[in-house]
Amino acid sequence: MGNADDEYRWTNVESAHRVAIPPPQPFFKTFKTSLKETFFPDDPLRQFKNQPPSRRFKLGLQYFLPILEWAPRYTFDFFKSDLISGITIASLAVPQGISYAKLANLPPILGLYSSFVPPLVYAMMGSSRDLAVGTVAVASLLTASMLGDEVDATENPTLYLHLAFTATFFAGVFQAALGILRLGFIVDMLSHATIVGFMAGAATVVSLQQLKGILGLDHFTHGADLVSVLRSVFSQTHEWRWESGVLGCGFLFFLLVTKYFSKRRPKFFWVSAMAPLTSVILGSLLAYLTHAENHGVEVIGHLKKGLNPISLTDLTFESKYLMIALKTGIMTAIIALAEGIAVGRSFAMFKNYHIDGNKEMIAFGMMNIAGSFTSCYLTTGPFSKSAVNFNAGCKTSVSNIVMAIAIMITLLFLTPLFHYTPLVVLSSIIIAAMLGLIDYETAIHLWKIDKFDFVICMSAYIGVVFGSVEMGLIIAVAISLLRVLLSVARPRTFVLGNIPNSTIYRNMDQYPVAKNVPGILILNINAPIYFTNSSYLRERILRWINEEEDRLKSSGETSLQYVILDMSAVGSIDTSGISMFEEVQKIIDRRGLKLVLANPGSEVMKKLDKSKFIDTIGQEWIYLTVGEAVVACNFMLHSYKPDPVTVKSEAPDNNV
Amino acid sequence: MGNADDEYRWTNVESAHRVAIPPPQPFFKTFKTSLKETFFPDDPLRQFKNQPPSRRFKLGLQYFLPILEWAPRYTFDFFKSDLISGITIASLAVPQGISYAKLANLPPILGLYSSFVPPLVYAMMGSSRDLAVGTVAVASLLTASMLGDEVDATENPTLYLHLAFTATFFAGVFQAALGILRLGFIVDMLSHATIVGFMAGAATVVSLQQLKGILGLDHFTHGADLVSVLRSVFSQTHEWRWESGVLGCGFLFFLLVTKYFSKRRPKFFWVSAMAPLTSVILGSLLAYLTHAENHGVEVIGHLKKGLNPISLTDLTFESKYLMIALKTGIMTAIIALAEGIAVGRSFAMFKNYHIDGNKEMIAFGMMNIAGSFTSCYLTTGPFSKSAVNFNAGCKTSVSNIVMAIAIMITLLFLTPLFHYTPLVVLSSIIIAAMLGLIDYETAIHLWKIDKFDFVICMSAYIGVVFGSVEMGLIIAVAISLLRVLLSVARPRTFVLGNIPNSTIYRNMDQYPVAKNVPGILILNINAPIYFTNSSYLRERILRWINEEEDRLKSSGETSLQYVILDMSAVGSIDTSGISMFEEVQKIIDRRGLKLVLANPGSEVMKKLDKSKFIDTIGQEWIYLTVGEAVVACNFMLHSYKPDPVTVKSEAPDNNV
Repeated sequence: MGNADDEYRWTNVESAHRVAIPPPQPFFKTFKTSLKETFFPDDPLRQFKNQPPSRRFKLGLQYFLPILEWAPRYTFDFFKSDLISGITIASLAVPQGISYAKLANLPPILGLYSSFVPPLVYAMMGSSRDLAVGTVAVASLLTASMLGDEVDATENPTLYLHLAFTATFFAGVFQAALGILRLGFIVDMLSHATIVGFMAGAATVVSLQQLKGILGLDHFTHGADLVSVLRSVFSQTHEWRWESGVLGCGFLFFLLVTKYFSKRRPKFFWVSAMAPLTSVILGSLLAYLTHAENHGVEVIGHLKKGLNPISLTDLTFESKYLMIALKTGIMTAIIALAEGIAVGRSFAMFKNYHIDGNKEMIAFGMMNIAGSFTSCYLTTGPFSKSAVNFNAGCKTSVSNIVMAIAIMITLLFLTPLFHYTPLVVLSSIIIAAMLGLIDYETAIHLWKIDKFDFVICMSAYIGVVFGSVEMGLIIAVAISLLRVLLSVARPRTFVLGNIPNSTIYRNMDQYPVAKNVPGILILNINAPIYFTNSSYLRERILRWINEEEDRLKSSGETSLQYVILDMSAVGSIDTSGISMFEEVQKIIDRRGLKLVLANPGSEVMKKLDKSKFIDTIGQEWIYLTVGEAVVACNFMLHSYKPDPVTVKSEAPDNNV
Repeated sequence: MGNADDEYRWTNVESAHRVAIPPPQPFFKTFKTSLKETFFPDDPLRQFKNQPPSRRFKLGLQYFLPILEWAPRYTFDFFKSDLISGITIASLAVPQGISYAKLANLPPILGLYSSFVPPLVYAMMGSSRDLAVGTVAVASLLTASMLGDEVDATENPTLYLHLAFTATFFAGVFQAALGILRLGFIVDMLSHATIVGFMAGAATVVSLQQLKGILGLDHFTHGADLVSVLRSVFSQTHEWRWESGVLGCGFLFFLLVTKYFSKRRPKFFWVSAMAPLTSVILGSLLAYLTHAENHGVEVIGHLKKGLNPISLTDLTFESKYLMIALKTGIMTAIIALAEGIAVGRSFAMFKNYHIDGNKEMIAFGMMNIAGSFTSCYLTTGPFSKSAVNFNAGCKTSVSNIVMAIAIMITLLFLTPLFHYTPLVVLSSIIIAAMLGLIDYETAIHLWKIDKFDFVICMSAYIGVVFGSVEMGLIIAVAISLLRVLLSVARPRTFVLGNIPNSTIYRNMDQYPVAKNVPGILILNINAPIYFTNSSYLRERILRWINEEEDRLKSSGETSLQYVILDMSAVGSIDTSGISMFEEVQKIIDRRGLKLVLANPGSEVMKKLDKSKFIDTIGQEWIYLTVGEAVVACNFMLHSYKPDPVTVKSEAPDNNV
């Protein structure tokens, strides 16, 4: 990779560039730097630098309450847009809220409560302009399945309800804590592939659960996996209600058609946005007129009028149920964060503004803590609702405030209207929403680009569908992490060859034009060197040398004299890695070869220096580029055989 | 990093080298290659290639029974050396075997049994010439603490004994399975730092346990941690026996002095090797003559004469105890493998021969399976014994056979001689051996070179000493893995600068002479790009750009036009990483900058190609070296502003 004139270099090897050993840094300084890189990679305090205290206070307040930052610039034009989008998402929030609350085995009214307080909190604290706050299907299902393992929602509804509030409280605390402690990267553990598989699995499971509503079944399994649901459905074919089935399929068809229509013509986004509310109204009218509740079509029934009651005193911290509430809280919190932050980030990317993940977590956390005090359960920024909000042209999170006000009006005056809403309509709404979450196109895309990501995606899907929601998530995360560990445990090593008419050296597999340099083997190590890969690398380097010697022997070429290790890609090294180098150096020495290093980075140089390995190998055998190393080796190779003093080979120990 | 003539390049940018997209490989082929790299990095089947079947059979037999390979070349000279070393290690095996069996709460005679059968098996199957087989302190302690949690060795000695055999059987099966399935890299999870800390911790704990023997205490804690042992010792000061204490300290002093002497003068290795047996003989004589057993000095008592009884039928697979036997087996197996393989490898390195880790595991496994059938408990290649073997000049594993024969003679005729051996002598022998395992020098070395490795080492030590042996191990492995994950989650990114008078670009922190290129920001990403770091990298790259723009603005230099990402060190990428690039590209585009890639590797190119990112960025914006990329950017910068067609920037979406 050197650019220097070859002729010149051949006659004067000493002019090659030196590889610098970085100046020693005080331990505290390096420690501080790496702490900062780990927890503050986005440097959130940058804007506070060199500001007077009053300005800092204002900036700090604006940091935690972004509304203070944008409200002064708010215009009437913005408001017109926000009003329309707010009303649109409210029309979606009512039926979805009721449906998802049913999915979580909670009273339907909770779905409305949850669309009132949390959006107000988010509007003040959130930094996304497009996120629409609401409950989500997956977290609802997770609440039902995890809490349901401990407490039966039908036998002990009050305890179950209180546990749901407690879980929401823990979720909020956990989310806010992640944000405050700047541990947002935990959410990064959920890769895109994991989320796609997981969401599709959850959507499948949630849709299957809706068969209960669609078929009008009274008895249904508590299990959420495919096998127990199908067994439950097909073991009681005699209980299927055709009235319910026909109604359900009809509305499902209507919803899917409007969805398809709006997808094809984005200008008519409001068609699919209004469809759920239309279905509810139509369904309720139909049920009211035909007295469908007497024909096997269950209806919502009485919904209490009035705003959210305070639930602060309902939180239960009894040791008996503490663990389950905590577990449910943390699990749902992670899922909710993953969805909410991904959604916020995508729209911010689209509109070209910035979202601070850790700040968003604090906002989500505060909104759930506030929610748990006011009879709400877990909320986040669902994709479907936010997409509608975005398409309806929202400008700021005032659309959330508009939605909250619409819900408030509903709670105060309109709840009786939902008395006759058939449950089967809600089931149709859920299924229609869920089918959109099965992103098979991305799965195919993953298969094409990265087989391993596809495996992760499918294992998340299969884990959720055949096991449980938690299991799918844990399996997928475990496989993802295993992949990362495996990539460090088995790093690639390449033989480099010379690109003709240059001093560039590149991987010979990738560049078939690259040529071997006679007498020199050039290896590139493509990972940090740690205990997990040091044994492997030792074996692999020796195998490359053996193979190269075999090849040279069989083809009768110049025998091997130098082994150059290109360290450009070795970001760091630990003591096991250094021992590995010492061993490799000894073995190479014994074979009468010479080890040469090219371009070690600063951390590697620092550690090689401290461990005296540089003295062992000789500073003159470390080059800035592979090109310079090759020139130097060639010079030695053609002018004289290395003598024992320069090469510093250890005299073989004859006593051994 | 290009070497080409700059003048020429400035006038003809198109001549730059193309980055090759590697030719597509059939999925099955790449899958096979990566399987091979993962499980067969040392290519063990290489010697079988192109051989006739009869030769293959012979090689296969030699693979599993290395004795067939070296026995024909065995000479009388070798035998003389092996005889001497074999007798030397036998003299160590007798007292150590008895001591460690006591440590494991097993009948002392088991220590002798375990030095008879397993060495014979290893002599046939093992590939190390220097390893001396025997029981080890740490595995013995682990057996006592893990099995002791479930079954009391004094209340139910038969069940305890049978469980020890069963655990040994599982350990053997586990070890052999690891070797056969080529999962030897699991042992690599124990880094050098972990092993140093763990061994020192175990040595501390084992030494503390010996206070029971030294002080002649009757009652003692079952816990192995520092706190419970010290409490146990100092809560019963009135029970201390001075006779026992004086004897113990005397022998300990003798053993340490001989050890120090032999260390200073390696020719007199036999002094320290013979010291334990001498202590036993002296101690036994003293006890016999003074009737010490009546003065608070406990003696071994009756040892059964005769060879190993068959214990095949003693293995218990009762479901009640299955789990504990399995857990103990696997835990001790891993510890034993880590020590045995490290020892074998070190000596092989010294004498310049090769050891196949997976093959060694099969040998260890078979020797423990055979051992569990013949009343032995877990054996491996302990460091102390192997070092004595090595110093005594052993040539092949015949020294193990000699030792086994010496032990056989002892078992058949000499066991009554050990009747009067005081237990306190055994305690002294254990402490003397353990103090050698506390490798504080390496711990200091770790602190100097790699603080994180030191933390791992200390956490293993503290975990073992204050928690339990298993806990120390698990904590240390968890921290080690976390470090690896963290290094992938927070990879280093560097700004590269031009080394004066060259086209080499290097990290500006490491090379203070490197200079910025006006209008161009060059970043080096130093890790594979995965879901764990893709969010971080996006933030970090944007922050570099912000900082660079701020710097340029304040100093009034040319504004930023190009961002070059040096991908040399990016070994692989997943779909999250590709999305990251797409996002970064969009953001950079919006800011009116141009993203340029330099030297992406084959896997990265393959995936960027499949995901159409190359089309988005434009193939002409991917260069083979940073140098060529800079030349091209400079050319554009100085000749004309990039026009929309060549730069292919997306037209900003005004609808959004």
